[in-house]
Amino acid sequence: MKQKQQRMAALVAACLFAGVSFAQTWIWYPGDYEIWLGNQMNNRRTERGAFYPPLWKTDSHYVVVEFSKKLDLKAPETIALAVEGRYNVKIAGKLQFGMPDKIDLPAGRYNLNIKVWNQDTPPAIYVQGTTVNSDASWRVTNEDKEWIDESGKASDTSASEYTTTGCWNFDDIHSRPSAFKLKRTPQTAVAQTKEAAGGTLYDFGKETFGYVTLEGLGGQGLVHLYYGESPEEARDTARCETLDRLYLAADGQLTDLATRTTVKPDGNNYTLADSKAFRYVYITHDAGVQLPAASMQYEYLPETYRGSFRCDDPEVNRIWDVGAYTMHLTTREFFIDGIKRDRWVWSGDAIQSYLMNYYLFFDSDAVKRTIWMLRGKNPVTSHINTIMDYTLYWFMSVYDYYMHTGDAHFVAQLYPRMKSLMGYVLGRMDANGMLQGLDGDWVFIDWSPGKMYKRGELSFEQLLFCRSLETMSLCASLNGDGQGERLYSTLASTLRAKLVPTFWNNQKQALVHTVENGVQSKVVTRYANIFAILFGYVDAAKQQAIKHSVLENDSIMRIVTPYMRFYELEALCALGGQQEVMKEIKSYWGGMLKEGATSFWEVYDPKESGAQHLAMYGRPYGKSLCHAWGASPIYLLGKYFLGVTPVQQGFDEFAIAPNLGGLKWMEGDVPTPHGNIHVYMNRKQIKVKAPAGQGYLTIHSRRQPKANIGQAEKVGEGTWRLRIDSPQERVVEY
Amino acid sequence: MKQKQQRMAALVAACLFAGVSFAQTWIWYPGDYEIWLGNQMNNRRTERGAFYPPLWKTDSHYVVVEFSKKLDLKAPETIALAVEGRYNVKIAGKLQFGMPDKIDLPAGRYNLNIKVWNQDTPPAIYVQGTTVNSDASWRVTNEDKEWIDESGKASDTSASEYTTTGCWNFDDIHSRPSAFKLKRTPQTAVAQTKEAAGGTLYDFGKETFGYVTLEGLGGQGLVHLYYGESPEEARDTARCETLDRLYLAADGQLTDLATRTTVKPDGNNYTLADSKAFRYVYITHDAGVQLPAASMQYEYLPETYRGSFRCDDPEVNRIWDVGAYTMHLTTREFFIDGIKRDRWVWSGDAIQSYLMNYYLFFDSDAVKRTIWMLRGKNPVTSHINTIMDYTLYWFMSVYDYYMHTGDAHFVAQLYPRMKSLMGYVLGRMDANGMLQGLDGDWVFIDWSPGKMYKRGELSFEQLLFCRSLETMSLCASLNGDGQGERLYSTLASTLRAKLVPTFWNNQKQALVHTVENGVQSKVVTRYANIFAILFGYVDAAKQQAIKHSVLENDSIMRIVTPYMRFYELEALCALGGQQEVMKEIKSYWGGMLKEGATSFWEVYDPKESGAQHLAMYGRPYGKSLCHAWGASPIYLLGKYFLGVTPVQQGFDEFAIAPNLGGLKWMEGDVPTPHGNIHVYMNRKQIKVKAPAGQGYLTIHSRRQPKANIGQAEKVGEGTWRLRIDSPQERVVEY
Repeated sequence: MKQKQQRMAALVAACLFAGVSFAQTWIWYPGDYEIWLGNQMNNRRTERGAFYPPLWKTDSHYVVVEFSKKLDLKAPETIALAVEGRYNVKIAGKLQFGMPDKIDLPAGRYNLNIKVWNQDTPPAIYVQGTTVNSDASWRVTNEDKEWIDESGKASDTSASEYTTTGCWNFDDIHSRPSAFKLKRTPQTAVAQTKEAAGGTLYDFGKETFGYVTLEGLGGQGLVHLYYGESPEEARDTARCETLDRLYLAADGQLTDLATRTTVKPDGNNYTLADSKAFRYVYITHDAGVQLPAASMQYEYLPETYRGSFRCDDPEVNRIWDVGAYTMHLTTREFFIDGIKRDRWVWSGDAIQSYLMNYYLFFDSDAVKRTIWMLRGKNPVTSHINTIMDYTLYWFMSVYDYYMHTGDAHFVAQLYPRMKSLMGYVLGRMDANGMLQGLDGDWVFIDWSPGKMYKRGELSFEQLLFCRSLETMSLCASLNGDGQGERLYSTLASTLRAKLVPTFWNNQKQALVHTVENGVQSKVVTRYANIFAILFGYVDAAKQQAIKHSVLENDSIMRIVTPYMRFYELEALCALGGQQEVMKEIKSYWGGMLKEGATSFWEVYDPKESGAQHLAMYGRPYGKSLCHAWGASPIYLLGKYFLGVTPVQQGFDEFAIAPNLGGLKWMEGDVPTPHGNIHVYMNRKQIKVKAPAGQGYLTIHSRRQPKANIGQAEKVGEGTWRLRIDSPQERVVEY
Repeated sequence: MKQKQQRMAALVAACLFAGVSFAQTWIWYPGDYEIWLGNQMNNRRTERGAFYPPLWKTDSHYVVVEFSKKLDLKAPETIALAVEGRYNVKIAGKLQFGMPDKIDLPAGRYNLNIKVWNQDTPPAIYVQGTTVNSDASWRVTNEDKEWIDESGKASDTSASEYTTTGCWNFDDIHSRPSAFKLKRTPQTAVAQTKEAAGGTLYDFGKETFGYVTLEGLGGQGLVHLYYGESPEEARDTARCETLDRLYLAADGQLTDLATRTTVKPDGNNYTLADSKAFRYVYITHDAGVQLPAASMQYEYLPETYRGSFRCDDPEVNRIWDVGAYTMHLTTREFFIDGIKRDRWVWSGDAIQSYLMNYYLFFDSDAVKRTIWMLRGKNPVTSHINTIMDYTLYWFMSVYDYYMHTGDAHFVAQLYPRMKSLMGYVLGRMDANGMLQGLDGDWVFIDWSPGKMYKRGELSFEQLLFCRSLETMSLCASLNGDGQGERLYSTLASTLRAKLVPTFWNNQKQALVHTVENGVQSKVVTRYANIFAILFGYVDAAKQQAIKHSVLENDSIMRIVTPYMRFYELEALCALGGQQEVMKEIKSYWGGMLKEGATSFWEVYDPKESGAQHLAMYGRPYGKSLCHAWGASPIYLLGKYFLGVTPVQQGFDEFAIAPNLGGLKWMEGDVPTPHGNIHVYMNRKQIKVKAPAGQGYLTIHSRRQPKANIGQAEKVGEGTWRLRIDSPQERVVEY
């Protein structure tokens, strides 16, 4: 009981500490709206007209929750109340009549309780008064245990689990959370071509996402739409991934034959009810149908592009722009993988989206939504997305989020679900304290050009597991969970101490891929070796050894996904290989641009050509040509070229270590909770401006750099640092 | 994986063994419809116009589930398909276009899969073909884990949890489960009295449940309805438990002011949207309103009265009739406690309803629905209804159900949730292997006339716990769970061996109420002593000692609820005290009838009088005057007077031991899965007729009884038994 009170106190303190704004807003049980909205999102996937829900457990919101607030009113006031669901109101323990939308609150100290039932959408409330307003400081439970004895005396509810509420930006009483929709804006095709096969091919000029509008539709008969990210796909009516089949009746009623619903017309224009991803749409129809034109409603989440990057190389600028557009297309209700096919939220994809987001939109709400949604509810019955590595990335994503935002309140709200998920993971350790794939575990790692062995104690999985345990230890500490901290830190240090002895092979000068029944595999892959560098799990000598024997070794199986290239290039950057990485960025992402990409792909293998670029999963157009994990230059250019990273949570302390990587000049912004850090660099000068916080600018220079404020101190051969502790711009000649 | 396959095989085998009918019907994830319907039911409670949801965790259905069936079709056939939710269809792994309502199935061996998403109501399907029909043998999962690798190869789903489907009686394609409503029939008031206070009091002649119809309503203004189980309550507009407030507009629109919904008129008659329990309704209205009359729509679950009882004593017959009516009023979507106030499902109340039901309706579906609904979903975060004893009764109710019905299929479906609930209980054992109330546990036992001490190892709770462990051991054995069987049977026998040494007090010749820190309390209460007899946990000598020192000892705190009198009188019956029990039945239940009861009450204390009979929970009309647990004579008369009980599950073997208990004659029916067992007995003759199964008729007689078939054998002094192994009526003179 005392523990529970402490936890609530810690939650509220964390609110204050994290600078959570107590804005008047719609509130709900934290995670519940996110899980519900996630179901709406994940269940919009279709495959050639068939509904396609996820393969993992779909959770849902608590259908009955109780919101409460301790009031201490100096004067009476009247509050307006809006609720999603059936509800009651208790003032100082007394139930009020009916479902009031205005309540007169007396002066005094007492509890205000609002209990809501809603099967279909998450219970949510909005309270608007003079001093009493719904905000993130209210408390909420899904189980109040308010029983009474026969004398009418109420129970003490000491064992009930309360937490603070969840919210987003539904700040107006009329903005009901369940009615949330992304924004829309009209777009027109750049070309409309009558094809020999009889239909018309519309080209919208670039990868896009939205609702097709059939303009001036008339007559009677069938209308078919075939969507393509490539013209090949749109024209291939038998094999394209998504399509719509409609029937226009003589009375003008247009029916979607898949959902058997009616499409509402606006005059003779019909905008379809489901959004699709495409650049091309091939439309055919019966002879009796007239369809002079088609346009679309582009659908998007409004975002501010806080991060920026420009340099002297137009190809790199174009890569950054296409990366940012790829990110925007995949940053929606949640960070999704790709917009055409899955439209699902995958944890391994999402952690990369978060990292890119920190260097582009810095949309913390989108990160929080996605983390809640991926975690779902208890009981845990499988790994996140069924993938072992994706569970581990989920933990790591909480660490990244905390470092970039400093939002301890979120970590406090989330912590119980972190513990229960880690409980599931710990229940699956082998006798050696490591994770092997068990029945039902999808061990993913990466899509690879050759078959990948996935049995035994995979070094890659153990590194991620160790990092997850370290995250748990940190979060336990943040939440005052001493017992948890001891457990997780012991598990983490025990595992970490085993990693090199278990997996390092002196002959290979690398971590081997797996150890099975105590025997090291002869195979070396890039994955674990990359993360060993990123996590600092091997010393500097071994890092250099890995660079030589793995990263720069063409006999080690290549990485063909931008997904794992993200980490591979990051590891090279971490070892100071910016020049090499810049070449890779230009060749790999530039290669996609040369193939005509308008957004970055799920997989790009430069050794393939033509239609090979479209095929995957045994399907000719199975590959996604707009995949979030394709946008990693956004992250690499911000973190390792502009060189801005948080050193303490929320950028209270930062590091700025710009590196031109062969460019003549570059300039850009990196978002932080305190505002943007601006960096300009050419071969002689660096200019930085940080709105708040403190940190060092690292400069590589033979001679001592000259700064307009302060003096650079030498920290190594050819390396200097300059303290930044005020918002004035630093201009450094080097 | 092998274990999971075995479990599915066991489930299907259990279907066949239990004679589960493979009727074509709507199917769902087992328990999901029941939990959802339970929410509809529990959330209909109102208190003076305020919505009043339960205080415990409200679970909900899985929002995405997949149904599947292995087909082996000799010829192609076409199936009709109806679905509650958005869905897809896979034939032999191939997704079909859209949401088809007719499907052509080819001949051959393959899987048919239907995956459904529904947030609001439980995913459910109905399939109607020549040989392919939805029935209880389909399998279903909430997590298919059907991932594919990059080549398109599907995962093996070996770790997915499948079970057989749930169903009820929605056998027609148009009977959508979510549209279920109880039946209705009109009822009229027996008296309509204009009261001095200005309103009109309607008396419907007896306790009833339904929707008031305002007949010939006209004019404009407020209309108030005050409901009462007594005239005092209905007239007490400030304190009655339930009410309705309405506003009639000049245009005839009638608005319910609590829910702000409109009441649909039928001419000038308006039937309210929410049902209430009452005998009396006091109606007031503004001067501008005309309301010549009110009637009602009685709402009920259709039931067949399979059990019956008649005897020479008209008061006993009346008690049986009022008990049966009380049972019918409280047997609805589920077995609820009382119809006026809670209208909730409580496990301790429900187990008594089940037992009475076996001697009245034998409605197995109602029992199954209630057991599923009470159990809810994982994770378990509190006791059922938050009450420790109620969790334990829940286990015991599964045993009772299995004994009466022999339905091993239900036990097999339920078993995983039995295990997880018992896991929760075992996690709360003290070092002594016993249960004490922890934070958040409501230790109920009974409403008592004096304060009851509830700390320490309460003997009552340990007896129930021991019985629950024995039930788990049985169910583990039925489900081939050898490990579980060993665990539960060890825990049960260890606990059972401790009961008498821990709680028996030689001086008191009874089990004491509690042991705290190893020290026996000086207090003896009836509860544990009653159950020690019923469970046979004490030997015959101690049973007789308890009878004398507890049951017949007026200095031991009295029992004032029909709830615990149920078990108290059962214990007396078990010790052969039918004559004494008959006197109690006549005095206690007859006492309620003399007070004017038309249904039996939540609490009846013969020492109280007048308005005291109405008050409870600190409220003047807090007491329920129609409470299921009030109907126990139904059970006692069937089980201990007609004397019919199952000896093997499902009455494959039965016992018939009729006992007149002082009556001149009695006659009645006891339902079994094979049909009714009929018993007639007077002081010289017994006639019994059992449609199937085998068993013994026990006769108490000085001389050897004479039977028309077979010969009675002596089994003790004055006790004989006659084998019954055919459906012919036995006529025995004794």
